[in-house]
Amino acid sequence: MTSSTRGPRGSYSVGIARRRKIVQAAAERFAQEGYHRTALSRIAEDVGITEGGLLHHFRSKKHLLLAVMEHRFATEAEWWAGVPDDADGTEVLRAMVAATERHLAEPGLIELFVLTSAEAADPTSAAHALFADRYRRAIDELAHLFRLAVERGTLREDTDCAAVARECIAVSDGLQLQWVISQGSLDLADAVRLHADRIARTITPDGRGL
Amino acid sequence: MTSSTRGPRGSYSVGIARRRKIVQAAAERFAQEGYHRTALSRIAEDVGITEGGLLHHFRSKKHLLLAVMEHRFATEAEWWAGVPDDADGTEVLRAMVAATERHLAEPGLIELFVLTSAEAADPTSAAHALFADRYRRAIDELAHLFRLAVERGTLREDTDCAAVARECIAVSDGLQLQWVISQGSLDLADAVRLHADRIARTITPDGRGL
Repeated sequence: MTSSTRGPRGSYSVGIARRRKIVQAAAERFAQEGYHRTALSRIAEDVGITEGGLLHHFRSKKHLLLAVMEHRFATEAEWWAGVPDDADGTEVLRAMVAATERHLAEPGLIELFVLTSAEAADPTSAAHALFADRYRRAIDELAHLFRLAVERGTLREDTDCAAVARECIAVSDGLQLQWVISQGSLDLADAVRLHADRIARTITPDGRGL
Repeated sequence: MTSSTRGPRGSYSVGIARRRKIVQAAAERFAQEGYHRTALSRIAEDVGITEGGLLHHFRSKKHLLLAVMEHRFATEAEWWAGVPDDADGTEVLRAMVAATERHLAEPGLIELFVLTSAEAADPTSAAHALFADRYRRAIDELAHLFRLAVERGTLREDTDCAAVARECIAVSDGLQLQWVISQGSLDLADAVRLHADRIARTITPDGRGL
């Protein structure tokens, strides 16, 4: 693959386009071969530049990893924005399962998520700011969808929407960690479905599950 | 603090004792000041040896971190072994909340847990083996306690004990991550209690919560 050079070499828009290409190539390589097993030189090759050229855009492999995660979170947020505002409570919970199935289609990205989440434990890291933002948005968005469902009467009025959203995301993250540790032998989608069903049984008006 | 030297210098038992002291000192420092902010020289000072002496026992800060986590998992397993075999289902779930409160008494160790869990995502890492073992044991132990409760009729017969155990641990891990990211502003014990209560309402024979 060669780099596109529609504008003058080194121009701003070319830089942006190249950055995007690098992130995309890195996401693919990391997802397929794993973060640790992918050499920067290989990603540079994929986009038709030298390793030095790549390092001009991303100072280190870790910086590239963060950019990949940022991209993943943005894609995920877009996907969630596609869940209709008039979805009933169980549909929102089913979306949690569907989101997990999407993750499983790119198993390498699950490993990356666990990797960067650790980085984020250090409040001075760049990963920290990224994750703090991601959690705020994800919990807010999910709680918002639950709240709309409460308003339309498809979830019980006494539902603590923020707490349920937080729990859903905790289960998803914790199970992703177990999935990585078990080297993929855990049935992740099924485990998320079990939890979503349990949630449904405690917050739907008729106590029915998924 | 000076090192004890009851045996001949360098003997096996002295080595073991010193190793234990280093791990203890590291656990305290990491918990109080954070992993990243603690210098190895400071831990060496705490046990009355040089940094070179410390590196003789642990090749790097990362190796020391792993030893601290191993120690934490062992302490945790001991604590869980203290939950009586005749505990009813809700008592086992309340133990999940109590375990969280214990973690919160050593907040620095929660940060460490998140840090090492990321390491563990790499199957070739030493952290991987440690975490794989920890998850197997923790899930087995918790599932065993639930199974005993099912046998005595304090949990419903159709309870999938392994799945419930896995979910409890996922919630605990996922919420610990959120707690670290929120820099301690999340009410962790309350969030774990909410989940334990939800579990109780779906697996106790009378559908009652905690």
